[in-house]
Amino acid sequence: MEEFAQLTSPTLLLRPEIAKRNIQRMANKAKQAGLEFRPHFKTHQSHTVGGWFRDAGVTKITVSSIAMAEYFALDGWQDITIALPLNIREMDRINALARKIKLNVIVDNAQILTILEYQKMVQAPLHVWVEADCGDGRSGIPLKNKGAFIHVAQTLMKSPTMQFAGILTHAGHAYRRMSSTEAKALFTDISDNLGKLVEYFYRFEDFKGMKIPVSFGDTPLCSQLEAFPNIDELRPGNFVFYDFMQYAFGACTIDDIAMVMACPVISHQGGQQYIVHGGAVHFGKDFLLTNLKHKPVEEGKNFGWQVDFTESGWKPYRNSYLRGLSQEHGEAFNGSTPLLDKDLGQLAYFLPIHSCLTADLMMRYYLVENGELGEEIRMMKADPGYLDGFGNS
Amino acid sequence: MEEFAQLTSPTLLLRPEIAKRNIQRMANKAKQAGLEFRPHFKTHQSHTVGGWFRDAGVTKITVSSIAMAEYFALDGWQDITIALPLNIREMDRINALARKIKLNVIVDNAQILTILEYQKMVQAPLHVWVEADCGDGRSGIPLKNKGAFIHVAQTLMKSPTMQFAGILTHAGHAYRRMSSTEAKALFTDISDNLGKLVEYFYRFEDFKGMKIPVSFGDTPLCSQLEAFPNIDELRPGNFVFYDFMQYAFGACTIDDIAMVMACPVISHQGGQQYIVHGGAVHFGKDFLLTNLKHKPVEEGKNFGWQVDFTESGWKPYRNSYLRGLSQEHGEAFNGSTPLLDKDLGQLAYFLPIHSCLTADLMMRYYLVENGELGEEIRMMKADPGYLDGFGNS
Repeated sequence: MEEFAQLTSPTLLLRPEIAKRNIQRMANKAKQAGLEFRPHFKTHQSHTVGGWFRDAGVTKITVSSIAMAEYFALDGWQDITIALPLNIREMDRINALARKIKLNVIVDNAQILTILEYQKMVQAPLHVWVEADCGDGRSGIPLKNKGAFIHVAQTLMKSPTMQFAGILTHAGHAYRRMSSTEAKALFTDISDNLGKLVEYFYRFEDFKGMKIPVSFGDTPLCSQLEAFPNIDELRPGNFVFYDFMQYAFGACTIDDIAMVMACPVISHQGGQQYIVHGGAVHFGKDFLLTNLKHKPVEEGKNFGWQVDFTESGWKPYRNSYLRGLSQEHGEAFNGSTPLLDKDLGQLAYFLPIHSCLTADLMMRYYLVENGELGEEIRMMKADPGYLDGFGNS
Repeated sequence: MEEFAQLTSPTLLLRPEIAKRNIQRMANKAKQAGLEFRPHFKTHQSHTVGGWFRDAGVTKITVSSIAMAEYFALDGWQDITIALPLNIREMDRINALARKIKLNVIVDNAQILTILEYQKMVQAPLHVWVEADCGDGRSGIPLKNKGAFIHVAQTLMKSPTMQFAGILTHAGHAYRRMSSTEAKALFTDISDNLGKLVEYFYRFEDFKGMKIPVSFGDTPLCSQLEAFPNIDELRPGNFVFYDFMQYAFGACTIDDIAMVMACPVISHQGGQQYIVHGGAVHFGKDFLLTNLKHKPVEEGKNFGWQVDFTESGWKPYRNSYLRGLSQEHGEAFNGSTPLLDKDLGQLAYFLPIHSCLTADLMMRYYLVENGELGEEIRMMKADPGYLDGFGNS
């Protein structure tokens, strides 16, 4: 057997020097642009990696669920935004946490405020961001519906328990292949419309002299751009690890990708296919097709891109990748020239397509530094308190 | 709020009467066909549901990993097949378990036997099935390479620790839309070739008078057929819960689907879209397109099919489904006539596309009987022993 003899099953590996460099670079960028930096922690879901952000001066964070907010509050984080439209069925847990820390939530609808007020559901101070749809078409008030933003913000300003925190948006439509020119054009359009929305607020007496912060997030645009006019806060998340999808989008280099899955080779019949232990319950089912900026794959779906793990970093194979995943099987297509020579029992390494979902499935990762296997990092879902709610602990 | 006021976050619900009926039906089918029944437990991953199989007379099971084998051995299962080509890096755990129970593994390559023997890696009795590729093109020796089967089986017969158990195959290429005629034609072809392979074994002195069992598995064919010539053992798994994919394939009726995800509605802007709390970390990213036997969706990807949960069962909406999933957001497209009337905070119900992966992600499900929320079932990954290996406990 070669390196990492102690690895027996599919194992997710993290190179901390890359993750720390990604963190520092984004923190510097926010600082130089004069912006608040509120990174999204949904990708790493770990107290340890959270500590690396703390070392970079981060004090405010973003999460995607009340469970994740509770988990990071337990580790001392005191200012957390749950970047999912408020789920009013979770108000007991939200109130409990809002009594302990500064808790920020988002709404995109006046109806929800009526329900909350009418049923007296808010029992602790809540900082409420109004979500804008800047073109993604998922959640948020469409930017052009300026009157709806005013109505929601004015309703919040009358509430005894809720405070209007600002405007928050996520450019989900930036998750695609973009040149830096295209990225800049997309952002400029969003930024102009956000600027106009804030100007519109100042037509109303209620908001005169008031700062209306604008929070913006997504790894592709935050990675590609340096200047962020009309924005006050950045909330990218995936950039801590990046992945093959972000590389294909043009948001990072291959050397910025911090994670790889090590998979034992378990079957081959000769020819261009071999089977690894590593399937849908390890990688998840996100894939990329071939119409991407970077084309390592000649046909069909790519569920993970094969690389060698060398001292100097990833050495990618041009046309070797996971072309199919069953529950625990991975079908690796070996189209490299010369053919890879993988024997049964050896490890094959694949860059994940989407590191957020792969890490979430694996529940843990191992640090690798200088070619040595180090500390095991257990994530939120591996914590014994997860299924019962950390708020109850 | 309506029914299930206690549900606050995305929650997977299981109707036990349906799962038990699915189990009994498949057990009866195997019995009537005179076959061994060795169901795959990767779908439910639960001691409780395993108990329902035990109640139906099951004593032999299939799993997809050494961890799952250890988990079910802890619950008293004494005859387990790991239906993934043997991962020789896991031999310590495999040997430890093979000392305690009858452990069956699969190989599809003579090279692996050489490695095992040469390195004296097998230290407990292992029952070894030779995997055949019956047309799927994943793992297994292609059925036409008869000589390779003989070579592997003869090598096994010379081993002091390994015992040739028979031929095992999985028709992964049956996971597609099929009429019952097409299903029968596909199976007949596989069955004929398996029969010829067994006949070929008897040309060799080594196998004269010996029973060569043939193990066959997959939910679509086991569901659609009643007779299984040339087969000795059935290993379907997904049928315990079924899902929308199996329904689309023609393998079950909608009333055979035992699971549904309840998702709180968290956003809408009017029109045909609303957002639910329920995303890729809950459902997984498997989807169906529209070119299926049953077409509830008019365009694009379907990540979950919306139904009402009524006393008499699922009431599906013709054109309402999850058209997109982010990490925790689900984008529900509401194309029903009349439009569904879902308010913020209400629950929306979606049949999962692929119940194996959805359950694996959720790590637990709740029983619902007569409209009442009952017992919480925690799965393997929710067990505190999972990440350390159950064999060490």
